[in-house]
Amino acid sequence: MWGERYPDPMSTARVANRLVELCQQQKNFDAMKELYADNIVSVEAVARPDGKFETVGKEAVIQKSAGWAGAHEIHSGNIEGPFLLLDRFSVIFDFEVTPKATGKRVAVREIAVYTVTGDQITKEEFFYGEDADALAR
Amino acid sequence: MWGERYPDPMSTARVANRLVELCQQQKNFDAMKELYADNIVSVEAVARPDGKFETVGKEAVIQKSAGWAGAHEIHSGNIEGPFLLLDRFSVIFDFEVTPKATGKRVAVREIAVYTVTGDQITKEEFFYGEDADALAR
Repeated sequence: MWGERYPDPMSTARVANRLVELCQQQKNFDAMKELYADNIVSVEAVARPDGKFETVGKEAVIQKSAGWAGAHEIHSGNIEGPFLLLDRFSVIFDFEVTPKATGKRVAVREIAVYTVTGDQITKEEFFYGEDADALAR
Repeated sequence: MWGERYPDPMSTARVANRLVELCQQQKNFDAMKELYADNIVSVEAVARPDGKFETVGKEAVIQKSAGWAGAHEIHSGNIEGPFLLLDRFSVIFDFEVTPKATGKRVAVREIAVYTVTGDQITKEEFFYGEDADALAR
């Protein structure tokens, strides 16, 4: 029943549950290293300093996240999900952070949508709520 | 700055805020009538009785939602959002429903992702959490 158009949702569920498990343990970077495809595309709601919304490639995407983590004091992180749709899944992230640039602590929520191809994540997309400034990577 | 590839996010925000406003007033069907494009595509995580995951066309999509509403006693509905990403936005829906087929009340949460083209919604996609049975339309 699951053909090229609608890939095996069990694969999606396996990858989704693994990402949630690792993020619940605050091992977000381990999740990226283990699950992200070499050619992953990351899409953000706010343009990067170079004017682009997309970042391509596992190393570049991990570097982007590392840059964000380094620019913030992260007091807590929580993940809820996964929510499944065929070859994609979404999660809700909640962070309590203090951007080092402002020193002002904020609670931010975002929705992430991941695309799974085979046993790897090939796309991550971040939808921002109102406090987008503290989420831009 | 916003070209063909990255449509005007202000249009996305306007449509998103209007959908949330109407759904907060429990006017979900008014939201569909006002904002859905004639050729809207709806994608569900569980196949429809005809085996398809997609429903095409405003009338067919509204009928599908009406079928779901008719098959459930809806005790409450809540919407959170919007969360924005370029020409798309997402929301979190929470429903307390009793499927008439089971008589068993459940709390269900789903994430919806909408695509905006011009001032209309051209795609709706529903990501299900664990209680998918009560969400399948």
